[in-house]
Amino acid sequence: MPNTFGKLFTISTWGESHGGGVGVVVDGCPPSLPLSEEEIQVELDRRRPGQSDIVTPRNEADQVQILSGIYEGRTTGTPISMMVFNKDARPGAYEEMKTKFRPSHADFTYHEKYGYRNPEGGGRSSARETIGRVAAGAIAKKILELAVGVETIAYVRQVQDLAMPESSSVTREAIEANAVRCPDQEVAAKMIELIKTVRSEGDSVGGVIECRIRNLPVGLGEPVFDRFEADLAKAMLSLPATKGFEVGSGFAGVSLKGSQHNDPFEIRDGKVRTTKNHSGGVQGGITNGEDVLFRIAFKPTATILQAQATVDTDGQETELAARGRHDPCVLPRAVPIVEAMANLVTLDHYMRQQAQNRLFLFDQS
Amino acid sequence: MPNTFGKLFTISTWGESHGGGVGVVVDGCPPSLPLSEEEIQVELDRRRPGQSDIVTPRNEADQVQILSGIYEGRTTGTPISMMVFNKDARPGAYEEMKTKFRPSHADFTYHEKYGYRNPEGGGRSSARETIGRVAAGAIAKKILELAVGVETIAYVRQVQDLAMPESSSVTREAIEANAVRCPDQEVAAKMIELIKTVRSEGDSVGGVIECRIRNLPVGLGEPVFDRFEADLAKAMLSLPATKGFEVGSGFAGVSLKGSQHNDPFEIRDGKVRTTKNHSGGVQGGITNGEDVLFRIAFKPTATILQAQATVDTDGQETELAARGRHDPCVLPRAVPIVEAMANLVTLDHYMRQQAQNRLFLFDQS
Amino acid sequence: MPNTFGKLFTISTWGESHGGGVGVVVDGCPPSLPLSEEEIQVELDRRRPGQSDIVTPRNEADQVQILSGIYEGRTTGTPISMMVFNKDARPGAYEEMKTKFRPSHADFTYHEKYGYRNPEGGGRSSARETIGRVAAGAIAKKILELAVGVETIAYVRQVQDLAMPESSSVTREAIEANAVRCPDQEVAAKMIELIKTVRSEGDSVGGVIECRIRNLPVGLGEPVFDRFEADLAKAMLSLPATKGFEVGSGFAGVSLKGSQHNDPFEIRDGKVRTTKNHSGGVQGGITNGEDVLFRIAFKPTATILQAQATVDTDGQETELAARGRHDPCVLPRAVPIVEAMANLVTLDHYMRQQAQNRLFLFDQS
Amino acid sequence: MPNTFGKLFTISTWGESHGGGVGVVVDGCPPSLPLSEEEIQVELDRRRPGQSDIVTPRNEADQVQILSGIYEGRTTGTPISMMVFNKDARPGAYEEMKTKFRPSHADFTYHEKYGYRNPEGGGRSSARETIGRVAAGAIAKKILELAVGVETIAYVRQVQDLAMPESSSVTREAIEANAVRCPDQEVAAKMIELIKTVRSEGDSVGGVIECRIRNLPVGLGEPVFDRFEADLAKAMLSLPATKGFEVGSGFAGVSLKGSQHNDPFEIRDGKVRTTKNHSGGVQGGITNGEDVLFRIAFKPTATILQAQATVDTDGQETELAARGRHDPCVLPRAVPIVEAMANLVTLDHYMRQQAQNRLFLFDQS
Repeated sequence: MPNTFGKLFTISTWGESHGGGVGVVVDGCPPSLPLSEEEIQVELDRRRPGQSDIVTPRNEADQVQILSGIYEGRTTGTPISMMVFNKDARPGAYEEMKTKFRPSHADFTYHEKYGYRNPEGGGRSSARETIGRVAAGAIAKKILELAVGVETIAYVRQVQDLAMPESSSVTREAIEANAVRCPDQEVAAKMIELIKTVRSEGDSVGGVIECRIRNLPVGLGEPVFDRFEADLAKAMLSLPATKGFEVGSGFAGVSLKGSQHNDPFEIRDGKVRTTKNHSGGVQGGITNGEDVLFRIAFKPTATILQAQATVDTDGQETELAARGRHDPCVLPRAVPIVEAMANLVTLDHYMRQQAQNRLFLFDQS
Repeated sequence: MPNTFGKLFTISTWGESHGGGVGVVVDGCPPSLPLSEEEIQVELDRRRPGQSDIVTPRNEADQVQILSGIYEGRTTGTPISMMVFNKDARPGAYEEMKTKFRPSHADFTYHEKYGYRNPEGGGRSSARETIGRVAAGAIAKKILELAVGVETIAYVRQVQDLAMPESSSVTREAIEANAVRCPDQEVAAKMIELIKTVRSEGDSVGGVIECRIRNLPVGLGEPVFDRFEADLAKAMLSLPATKGFEVGSGFAGVSLKGSQHNDPFEIRDGKVRTTKNHSGGVQGGITNGEDVLFRIAFKPTATILQAQATVDTDGQETELAARGRHDPCVLPRAVPIVEAMANLVTLDHYMRQQAQNRLFLFDQS
Repeated sequence: MPNTFGKLFTISTWGESHGGGVGVVVDGCPPSLPLSEEEIQVELDRRRPGQSDIVTPRNEADQVQILSGIYEGRTTGTPISMMVFNKDARPGAYEEMKTKFRPSHADFTYHEKYGYRNPEGGGRSSARETIGRVAAGAIAKKILELAVGVETIAYVRQVQDLAMPESSSVTREAIEANAVRCPDQEVAAKMIELIKTVRSEGDSVGGVIECRIRNLPVGLGEPVFDRFEADLAKAMLSLPATKGFEVGSGFAGVSLKGSQHNDPFEIRDGKVRTTKNHSGGVQGGITNGEDVLFRIAFKPTATILQAQATVDTDGQETELAARGRHDPCVLPRAVPIVEAMANLVTLDHYMRQQAQNRLFLFDQS
Repeated sequence: MPNTFGKLFTISTWGESHGGGVGVVVDGCPPSLPLSEEEIQVELDRRRPGQSDIVTPRNEADQVQILSGIYEGRTTGTPISMMVFNKDARPGAYEEMKTKFRPSHADFTYHEKYGYRNPEGGGRSSARETIGRVAAGAIAKKILELAVGVETIAYVRQVQDLAMPESSSVTREAIEANAVRCPDQEVAAKMIELIKTVRSEGDSVGGVIECRIRNLPVGLGEPVFDRFEADLAKAMLSLPATKGFEVGSGFAGVSLKGSQHNDPFEIRDGKVRTTKNHSGGVQGGITNGEDVLFRIAFKPTATILQAQATVDTDGQETELAARGRHDPCVLPRAVPIVEAMANLVTLDHYMRQQAQNRLFLFDQS
């Protein structure tokens, strides 16, 4: 089931960039949750094209329709099918790409993997696939906020070499206060300028998104394979354009000695806490009650408006200069996608933890 | 199934540090493969304690027994059960840890997750669990080498701030030529010295392991969730002490523009190849025929022989000074574990690719 | 994933009787298969309401739309999303059922399971859910016929106590030659008469569907849990109104001694064959090359137009007389559904068998 | 994962008849459950060979060892590995079967499926595989009895044509009061005589086992594919020698009209109950609070001591007369296996139900 994610709260996405539409089926959702299309739409609007002047101008309202699983405004526990029709498809714009492989795109690998592919707008490899993830993630987010009190926020920490300083007090408001979704408004302004410059050169940039999950219960994550951070890593590396994932101290942590890196325990406000958080909120693959903190590296957008060397489907070397609409930097629109994936992982692990370890309370006397 | 990994070639590990033993059940293995305990043992010997003077002196031969799935020296296609008995267990050494949580270990999180735990040697959170992975990985490795021609090598690229330069021509022989498993012999000598110094201080260090998968067919990896690099990321972050994963250009790649980062295609030796490999061998989640190249950040070992602040199971602040045997640097022994996980991911994806996309050859005329 | 079926060729259905529609997402489909909506529609037309005068008169064209996974008439290997809009919904007809539980329906159990449900037309428990199965099964059928040569036929063997004699030479044409889908035309005529009589009494009848899978390769089915007949049993018992499953000699076989029941082997046309087929085409859970032959018991339709004792959502005893449209006998429309499930099980097992046991041909010398 | 069963409470079995042993890994078990080898052994003793004079005389104590997942007498929530060594193996007795396929056994199908097999005692197809199921089932049984109050009992209802009348008041004591495990002592005596007669003829008989699950909560079972009875059907048809499954009215129910078959609701002892139980305790795939009642058809044992026609691995027709030890009737020893599978299905569904539908109680105002 290559297009399904999750164990108990599962999502299955479908659709292509220029087919009829894209969608998702959510299975395993708890019943009786109040849910409306408007709530889903809020998150989709954060990822939709055309939302600001630093993202792709492709004109898609990305209006979601809920096709099943809701009755009179509440979930019924049965599959929730949601979809968005593709509107502003321009298949003609992709004529050249039927035969020429775009460098660092998935054209060549899809061609070889399947032997047959939909080349329009990248087909299934288009980031439009993430619409389904964001729609499903909006449900997970609501459950986590309503029933568990978890808050997940992601933000652009770095664009190319422009980085904001570390901060544990980032707010949603600060993130949404600018088009690039960096909560440091000064750095954000510079990032926006950089993105515009790069776009004017027909080029692109990447960066780093940081995500923080607050108020998590202790105990989420399965030791061994399905560690909380392992499932986060998979979730994040499953997003287009990602090249790296780190949690807590990450790659920088290798410069420290154990005596510096370890997080001593203390009692704070009556709870077992660590005095710092090099662990990034996970120990032995299980959440320890601190913020789960991780970062994802996004490469510069592969689509650029410059001529590039490539080969075609006949095995001939040739050149390709992309036309058409694209994001000079994917990070601003990737922020809600990262949050969606983080919420999906968190809810799934919450349900798994409850199912195995909280249902049965055997007398320990 | 929190203790199972893989979709078609699956492994399920079991066991604790100081219980009866540790083991693994491999399911889905192709039949007729010649297989002996000696072949499995070769890989286990590379991860076993006591193999050199820079690893833990715990004395475990880690002698594997194959309990099922083999008949007269060949696999039968039925589950292969393998186990290793624990020998040099010293439960008494862990008396203090029954009540005091070791900082940056999994004691606290297991305690909270399950409400009840085996504290001896970390119980299930012990790195002895990886014995099962290495035993299973040895089978995957043999199949991949024999039937597909794939070669997977991992090596220590960096210890604390000591790093070897990039090299695409690393050999197994160079890796195994020293105790730290860094193929650059000069850098290796410095790393060994560093590890000894750190150990003498009762401290520990981390580092970076790099892994290279050579001669992969084009087309492995499922687009969307089960991307080849996403499954590698999960596999690697599921290993104890890991804090980060990056593929190809990784985190450093964010400093480049798209025009610098993109990998142009060319025809080389009659094949579609890229002129460089910022992609790390994967595009759109699918292998493109270049080496798959990734790096994993390992934190410094949490066990150190210095007093540390912590709390106990009664919620009282206290102090703990570890005794007992441990690795001052886990990287040398982690090398075969990384290879094992990489081989497991690769074989599983190879089988998935064949099952969906190579079985049926519909006439395309 | 309670709404997903299959391991490699998987289907996930969604939708309710009176919601927006019903649909299915097929994942893992091989690429390059020529596929049109018309081919899917052929099977849907065999299950749709209103097709004859012995089935429910609900007027649904059940026109399928393929939303993804096809490009220019061929599958791309990506998820195939298909849906059918509900047209002739009459939610008003179900007002009484919001509070009164229909006997031997799923109203009460859904109410208790989820605490909240869509009562219109049975919501998710409606047999309209099987539209997705039939649509997906049509794809499996095409692959099996085109690439493997398998033929699956189901037919009504018995209605109440009217049964046709055993026959191994049943043809599709004979099955489709009458409204009840019994290949024995004389018995069929009596069955039709019986169904009409029962309907005129406001009552209903059940019966037995038999299914025969011809020309199967030897070797399908996983020993132990995923035996071929075990997966068939699950598939069939997952259909509404089913109460029993038997393969080969079935329940009648218990009257025989081993010496009578065993199927001796012989060589026939150069192949290893059995002289009879009490085994029903499976031995040790694995197909042996004979026809796989099984029967399913369907209870009489629960919806009847007679007053029945029941209770309501307030826990009061009351009475309910169903109105509205229903099938007096579900078997004629269940025939294509049984075939669909049989084809889904068969294709999935075919792919599993190839993936594990046919990819790698190790030298046995 | 062909050798794994269950979604949340999962078991993976391994081993062959004459290999080193047989075993099981249980994953997902709740922590803190008191558990000893003795408790497991009680169930294994009910299935072991040599327990009476109507079963196979193979001398196996089937002494279980728990290798992991227990600490100081309680489960830790980590995998529970259990195994039994094979003792009384007589590989020499199977020399002839290396080349001659036993009729109605799995020799031929394994040979063709895998191309290579362990012929000793049937290898993996031996019923010794069920030791792992019984050991795992004993844990499920304990949890269900202790924490949910469920009682599962199976018994021999019929041997060949000797059947006991229907009874809802069967007790464990009555079942265990005789060697054949039929709670009707008079019928049991005749069954035992029949089995002895048949054995003296070198022949075998089959029969029907009935199973009753009492005191189940309402709401277990996932509508659509994972219906409670569908998962039971799969579980039972995955047992060696089974040919049929029916729930509630089963195949006999097809003779009734809907007005006779439907189970009216009433209020009894303050609860919603049905006045009879043709449904067999499930409606729409979900338990309704009545006893779940089902029957399984077992064919006569395939191993008989009479000469039978067969073919050999060279494709030559030949004859085979089994020697060695076997059960003339598998039903007495199958009773604890049926109970084990029923308990595994029930616990798994209980955990699934709680995880999705009982964790989150959204305000419905």
